[in-house]
Amino acid sequence: MTRLVMKFGGTSMADLERIRRAARLVAAEFDAGHRVAVVVSAMAGKTNELVAWTDGAGKAQKRPENENASNVTPVEGDDEYDVVVASGEQVTAGLLAMTLRNMGYDAITMMGWQVPIITSDVHGKARILDIPPAKLETALDAGQIVVVPGFQGVTESGRITTLGRGGSDTSAVAVAAAVKAIRCDIYTDVDGVYTTDPRIESKARRLPKISFEEMLEMASLGAKVLQTRSVELAMAQRVPVRVLSSFVEPGQATDQGTIVCDEEEIVEKHIVSGVAFSRDEAKITLLGLPNKVGISALVFGKLAQANINVDMIVQSEKRSGDYANQIFTVGRRDAQTAIDIMRDGKDEIGFDDIRLDDTVSKISIVGVGMRSHTGVAETMFRALSEKGINIQVISTSEIKVSVLIDEAYTELAVRALHAAYGLDKIGA
Amino acid sequence: MTRLVMKFGGTSMADLERIRRAARLVAAEFDAGHRVAVVVSAMAGKTNELVAWTDGAGKAQKRPENENASNVTPVEGDDEYDVVVASGEQVTAGLLAMTLRNMGYDAITMMGWQVPIITSDVHGKARILDIPPAKLETALDAGQIVVVPGFQGVTESGRITTLGRGGSDTSAVAVAAAVKAIRCDIYTDVDGVYTTDPRIESKARRLPKISFEEMLEMASLGAKVLQTRSVELAMAQRVPVRVLSSFVEPGQATDQGTIVCDEEEIVEKHIVSGVAFSRDEAKITLLGLPNKVGISALVFGKLAQANINVDMIVQSEKRSGDYANQIFTVGRRDAQTAIDIMRDGKDEIGFDDIRLDDTVSKISIVGVGMRSHTGVAETMFRALSEKGINIQVISTSEIKVSVLIDEAYTELAVRALHAAYGLDKIGA
Repeated sequence: MTRLVMKFGGTSMADLERIRRAARLVAAEFDAGHRVAVVVSAMAGKTNELVAWTDGAGKAQKRPENENASNVTPVEGDDEYDVVVASGEQVTAGLLAMTLRNMGYDAITMMGWQVPIITSDVHGKARILDIPPAKLETALDAGQIVVVPGFQGVTESGRITTLGRGGSDTSAVAVAAAVKAIRCDIYTDVDGVYTTDPRIESKARRLPKISFEEMLEMASLGAKVLQTRSVELAMAQRVPVRVLSSFVEPGQATDQGTIVCDEEEIVEKHIVSGVAFSRDEAKITLLGLPNKVGISALVFGKLAQANINVDMIVQSEKRSGDYANQIFTVGRRDAQTAIDIMRDGKDEIGFDDIRLDDTVSKISIVGVGMRSHTGVAETMFRALSEKGINIQVISTSEIKVSVLIDEAYTELAVRALHAAYGLDKIGA
Repeated sequence: MTRLVMKFGGTSMADLERIRRAARLVAAEFDAGHRVAVVVSAMAGKTNELVAWTDGAGKAQKRPENENASNVTPVEGDDEYDVVVASGEQVTAGLLAMTLRNMGYDAITMMGWQVPIITSDVHGKARILDIPPAKLETALDAGQIVVVPGFQGVTESGRITTLGRGGSDTSAVAVAAAVKAIRCDIYTDVDGVYTTDPRIESKARRLPKISFEEMLEMASLGAKVLQTRSVELAMAQRVPVRVLSSFVEPGQATDQGTIVCDEEEIVEKHIVSGVAFSRDEAKITLLGLPNKVGISALVFGKLAQANINVDMIVQSEKRSGDYANQIFTVGRRDAQTAIDIMRDGKDEIGFDDIRLDDTVSKISIVGVGMRSHTGVAETMFRALSEKGINIQVISTSEIKVSVLIDEAYTELAVRALHAAYGLDKIGA
């Protein structure tokens, strides 16, 4: 029999009534002949509460004589943080298993340490290293519905770990890969992946299918349907992922969601599959930068040391042969830190002046069809131009074109591009 | 160095501020030169919340076709109940360890499965079978403060278990026995064991010491300071237990509590150490019972089958040579069930009539000194008689005399006996 992994997020586990609905969805798949493993998040809000407690415990008043004690472990990376926070998923896993049992199904939980889900020892941000499938497979083959708490694992030395926020998607994909599931169904509060955000463009269409590569671009560009890491893992392990709403009853017709899969399995390929946008952008311009070898390494090395992620980079507008202006973008919350770092290194780097613009947004078109079609970027630039939208920075990848524009034009740009690529005619 | 186990109940773990106070008490003992293991309960109220959720999950709507499915596991004894409910202690253990770390101490949690605390597989009511001490001892010897969640364990086959309500006291005593601790300090919301309930007799005195046997009688007679099972275990393993308040700061002078220990270690022995009472009593009288062999086995066999605990038994007041009246007491909540069972068996048993009196209370005096002193019971009967209190039933053990009286005289009887044995002059 085929194996299926189903994952339910925090809103789908928020109370007993929703847990019952999730149980009915699980039961329907089991009755349809699948062997089913379920991965669950904590009740919505619960992880925040637990994290707040760990923050409070971490700020416990220090004894004066220990103020600077070298053996004080910082809260970040504290393995006891994981012990506290992992408890949220333990509760929902147990409750879902009990609910299934009381519906007449043979369900059993396996905690991260019982499976085991072996992770690195970077507490609070652990990465899954291995999931030995034997225990899961034995239970599944015996007809048991196995419920696994997401987000948690265990180190080789037997300490509890957590994967960082949103890690339950990654847990689900990793479990699916381990048991060679035909698919990993991610039940969430949206019913699929759309051509763009329906709150901005009412004509947005749900995509029946999207390739891993496109989903990865969409996820990293701000479409918050799936965690980037879970998509990377699904692509690497070739596990098809389906995103669908948990707010439906089993068998409801519209409940097909979006399947994220290999490009080869998508018959109807689109040149552009979606328009993504991100307002979390800030543009920094270094004016009068010496045009010499190693200057970029110096600038971006300083930012990398501060763990600041630089996105778009353009070196342009030479003032003379020896000087250039350097433009780059960072996340808006990092902008001030980046400015401070640059100012601290002003003498070493040798620029004239620095400018910050944090009223910009990034608009992107994503589609595997770009690989084989020309003129895709041109259509984008023309569509924006016709609406009088100025493009400040451009960056491209094999299946993506991103532009930086004035934030005020975000919605206008999204709608213009959605229409220009005929996305309102796509899909279901 | 000597090892010490400290246990904090739910009210001592109720919020971050109280967890910090517990941490200061732990730190003080560590600084005083002890190797310290700590056992914690869940935050007050948390276990009730978790249990309520499992009740709700247990009442999940059954699918019609599975209504009578044989594989439906009842909630009671459901191993997933333990998974859910054990999470409460996991949270407080982690928070206490984090708090200690941030005070500059090297603390580490060990869950029931990590220690491991091996239990039977009676889920929800498991019994501790074994605590291999190696991991605990290694950590303690390395100077780590080990924090263990109470109430939870793990079966030989690796499933999470819980010990039943109040099990954290038992966890603490078992850990103390495993690591050969000099003492198990139970921090709670009272500051020790009193000669009687101070809410009834303001002259009640805190006992500096009480023997295991006396504490066991007190606990089973309604003094709710320690769980009966934890006292039994402490007595069997000869682990001295100290009961004291967690609502004090380290070093505070009054914070000596009550030590529960071997009788031999108590120099100043009292004939009577305390007066206990219980209002949870109901008296049932069977009138005109045939006076024949096996009749008592028949009556009490039927009650035992229904898991009804019978306490005091008196067969008396023969009406003629062939008939007797049988009086016995049961817990008040079982009274109606007991009556129903007797009525169902009326023809088989052959009694004339049945009477219920649920306005009785049981007053007991407890003291190891009774073994070597005569006239102790006589003092009790005379003191009650002087106040006009009628004794309905009497039962005795080696270190205890209990009487059943009209409930309305409870406080009067307690105060009369407290004075008669000079308990207001005892102790600290």
